[in-house]
Amino acid sequence: MSSLTRPGGRTARVRDAVLRATGDLLAESGFAALDLAEVARHAGVGRTTVYRRWGTPTGLIADVLVAMADESVPRARTGSIADDLRANARLVRSTLADVRQGRLFKAVVVAGACDDRAADALHGFYAARIDEWAPCVDEAIGRGQLPDGTDARQVIAAVSAPLYYALLQSGQPLTEALADQAAGAALAAAQAGAFAAR
Amino acid sequence: MSSLTRPGGRTARVRDAVLRATGDLLAESGFAALDLAEVARHAGVGRTTVYRRWGTPTGLIADVLVAMADESVPRARTGSIADDLRANARLVRSTLADVRQGRLFKAVVVAGACDDRAADALHGFYAARIDEWAPCVDEAIGRGQLPDGTDARQVIAAVSAPLYYALLQSGQPLTEALADQAAGAALAAAQAGAFAAR
Repeated sequence: MSSLTRPGGRTARVRDAVLRATGDLLAESGFAALDLAEVARHAGVGRTTVYRRWGTPTGLIADVLVAMADESVPRARTGSIADDLRANARLVRSTLADVRQGRLFKAVVVAGACDDRAADALHGFYAARIDEWAPCVDEAIGRGQLPDGTDARQVIAAVSAPLYYALLQSGQPLTEALADQAAGAALAAAQAGAFAAR
Repeated sequence: MSSLTRPGGRTARVRDAVLRATGDLLAESGFAALDLAEVARHAGVGRTTVYRRWGTPTGLIADVLVAMADESVPRARTGSIADDLRANARLVRSTLADVRQGRLFKAVVVAGACDDRAADALHGFYAARIDEWAPCVDEAIGRGQLPDGTDARQVIAAVSAPLYYALLQSGQPLTEALADQAAGAALAAAQAGAFAAR
């Protein structure tokens, strides 16, 4: 290692390469085919490094999800709850409709459905995304645009849920119209008090 | 074969046994572990029969989904759209919260995410379930309880989506309160015209 390279820098570069390779292989072949030796080869790092640091495919997926949460897009701040929720729905839609990202999300959901540790990591990823966007709702409550007691996290989950349902259950095309409908439905329900404690 | 047994009767009994065994094994070990020889052994039928009739794990899953659609519970007919949607949400919730059924649904969603033919069968299953319940919405439109032009299928999908999101993405507990909230949110959004063509 060059004396010009900080150890943290090299470690971070190895992690970037390994997680990028893991994402590529997950998007290409799914969870069941994920193999640590192949990840190491694709990343151009030693097998021993991958086995020692991540241990199992589940360990890799958990770290991929941590990186996905860290790197994901910050929330909108338009000042309008309708525009914020629409921006959220369109971001989720464009992510899931993208070929590589859509396959990657299917693969991590499959991992979560098959493995308890991957499920914990997956739930952590969605908790982080919901935490990022929930302030849109709380600020709208503060501006008097939504009823007091509205559960911000449930509103954000309600925006995404129909888009995941289209991806994984119904197979309905992930159009921008579907995203706008999901955002509009979540907003109308929130305005009517459907997410407020009774 | 006894002369007292109709061939159709025997065929139907073999199918029942094989699909029951497939469902049990899917719920127990998931899609990746599904093995035709093990299905045959659990069903008490010859391997050759299973290989000849279903061919692959995906073929078995496709037929399991046809049977699940055929056997699934008919829709509510309460005369009130609020009560109908709540009954639908509670049915979905109790199904997904049931240990065996929850695992079976995870396994078929995993199969659909991993295999195109299984995906077609999965979309067919959800189309059948949505077709079964959509008349609740159409009847409510007829009674003047919901706006003209409301997309009945999207309303039904919106009732289920947050429950699948809890099962597969967020890991939120599948409580009856969550089901009632999903039904109430879909209804409020429909009443506000969020599912009506513009």
